[in-house]
Amino acid sequence: MKTAKIGLLGFGNVGGGTYKILTDNKELIEKRIGVSPEVVKILQRNKNKKRFVDADEKLLTEDPDEILNNDEIDIVVEMLGGIEPATSFMLQAMENGKHVISANKAAIAANYDKLVNTAKKNNVEFLFEASVAGGIPVLTAITNALAANNYVEVMGILNGTTNYILTKMTEEGLPYDEVLKDAQAKGFAEADPTADVEGIDAANKLSILMALCFDKYVAPTDIPTTGITKISANDIKAADEAGKKIKLIGKASIENGEVTYSVQPVELDKTHPLAGVSNEFNAVYITGDMVGELMFYGRGAGPLPTGSAVCGDILSIMKRKF
Amino acid sequence: MKTAKIGLLGFGNVGGGTYKILTDNKELIEKRIGVSPEVVKILQRNKNKKRFVDADEKLLTEDPDEILNNDEIDIVVEMLGGIEPATSFMLQAMENGKHVISANKAAIAANYDKLVNTAKKNNVEFLFEASVAGGIPVLTAITNALAANNYVEVMGILNGTTNYILTKMTEEGLPYDEVLKDAQAKGFAEADPTADVEGIDAANKLSILMALCFDKYVAPTDIPTTGITKISANDIKAADEAGKKIKLIGKASIENGEVTYSVQPVELDKTHPLAGVSNEFNAVYITGDMVGELMFYGRGAGPLPTGSAVCGDILSIMKRKF
Repeated sequence: MKTAKIGLLGFGNVGGGTYKILTDNKELIEKRIGVSPEVVKILQRNKNKKRFVDADEKLLTEDPDEILNNDEIDIVVEMLGGIEPATSFMLQAMENGKHVISANKAAIAANYDKLVNTAKKNNVEFLFEASVAGGIPVLTAITNALAANNYVEVMGILNGTTNYILTKMTEEGLPYDEVLKDAQAKGFAEADPTADVEGIDAANKLSILMALCFDKYVAPTDIPTTGITKISANDIKAADEAGKKIKLIGKASIENGEVTYSVQPVELDKTHPLAGVSNEFNAVYITGDMVGELMFYGRGAGPLPTGSAVCGDILSIMKRKF
Repeated sequence: MKTAKIGLLGFGNVGGGTYKILTDNKELIEKRIGVSPEVVKILQRNKNKKRFVDADEKLLTEDPDEILNNDEIDIVVEMLGGIEPATSFMLQAMENGKHVISANKAAIAANYDKLVNTAKKNNVEFLFEASVAGGIPVLTAITNALAANNYVEVMGILNGTTNYILTKMTEEGLPYDEVLKDAQAKGFAEADPTADVEGIDAANKLSILMALCFDKYVAPTDIPTTGITKISANDIKAADEAGKKIKLIGKASIENGEVTYSVQPVELDKTHPLAGVSNEFNAVYITGDMVGELMFYGRGAGPLPTGSAVCGDILSIMKRKF
């Protein structure tokens, strides 16, 4: 059986989840794909950080070049987060002829054209299913199974932290500040929640969705973005009484070739499929000219759901390129 | 640009929808895939039947061998419905070295092993996304993007007719017979609704889902199946008062290597994502050991949604084999 040699950049939650899946489900993957995945090196920048799983010490390195310049490695998986050095690492890996997979929405949304073009120029694959909506395989659907459609609209609940906060505000009638504190205590919100609650994370994901659906790149900083920090318990109560639910929605649609886009709190009818998406779950609602409306629902974060999406990309490359 | 030569078996709703998409969105497909789809022949068994779209008369034939034995054709798309002659046509096409795509759940569920093995033996692709849940790309997700998961459970609302009837009974408090008549008048139920209302159609689809998720083939006739004909307005009212909705659910799960399966009306909590799936919509709810719960929602029937799924399979073959 052929072996795909894989280098992981990052060994936090997503890196750990990916490593665990490739280890625990190795036989299943070999049986289904006919190629064996082997992690040969893992970049771990902070040795003292708590890990999701352990790995053989001799796989670990603090030197990125042991992966990026390693002739043995076929596939580099970038799970560092942040725009740099992640982007430079991905470009270097592509230029060295390696297929690149990334879970890093910030880096991809910031440098979409450069990354896609560099992959094309070097004739390598660049896949990033995990960068939008975690474990939900929506990018693969957009670029493959649904690719005979002109997309008309894409909208989604793209951030689990804000959906958790809005759900708790709705169900328990509590104010934003109180729910945020609770979410931070439970690990659903970070100590500095700005990127989530101000809609920045959702804008990164919408930028990627728009690029794939409408072949139009808009920098996330150019997407009109409003977060959820100004939403009061009263707003939610008033919406409820009008048969609505407030959700943070990233949305883009096209009409006569013109794409309009925003990230903002929206009052959805309670009968809308997205209105039923609660807690930390994500969902993407797509309209194609032929298929009509579709919704993809699932876990938008977490080591194993996100790792599942990363592994889907790894398997796709193993299936087609080995 | 390379051209994929396609033969269509059947020119009813699904055949017509597929032809319309390949025609209307031809340029889009060429741009996205880099291969041009060309329909070179269409088997039309009944010249007098009302068509979804028209096609150039010289494409039409009443002789299946003009497709099955046509050396020019690369991909045969079977959209005839029924077990025979559809199965024999598919086997003949595979033996003649053609990739086969099918939307025909009855034929696939009845002859799954034979079709899959014949495709393997002849080194051709056999794809059938449209056979389960119409336009929803759930089979592609199961076999590709999610393939690093051990599947734990798959359940779904797999039949639009029964979901439409149950929705109207729930929303309007009407009895089964009355709603069925209305559904027949509106074209959501056939004159002979047996296959839908008795759960046979859903059992065909569950058989296919089980084969893909659990690598276990169970003939649809061996799946314990109960339809919706015995459900009364009172049953629905009682469920509603208990916070439940009655849905016709096809479900299979695995525990300690043992697969259990059924098609039957189930009382779902109103908070379950499947409970919010109304009218003629379908949805499939999947649990993987790594990704957790996912739901795929969309149109389970209709010329264009089903045609979208067929075209997704065509594009997949064009991308990888041309």
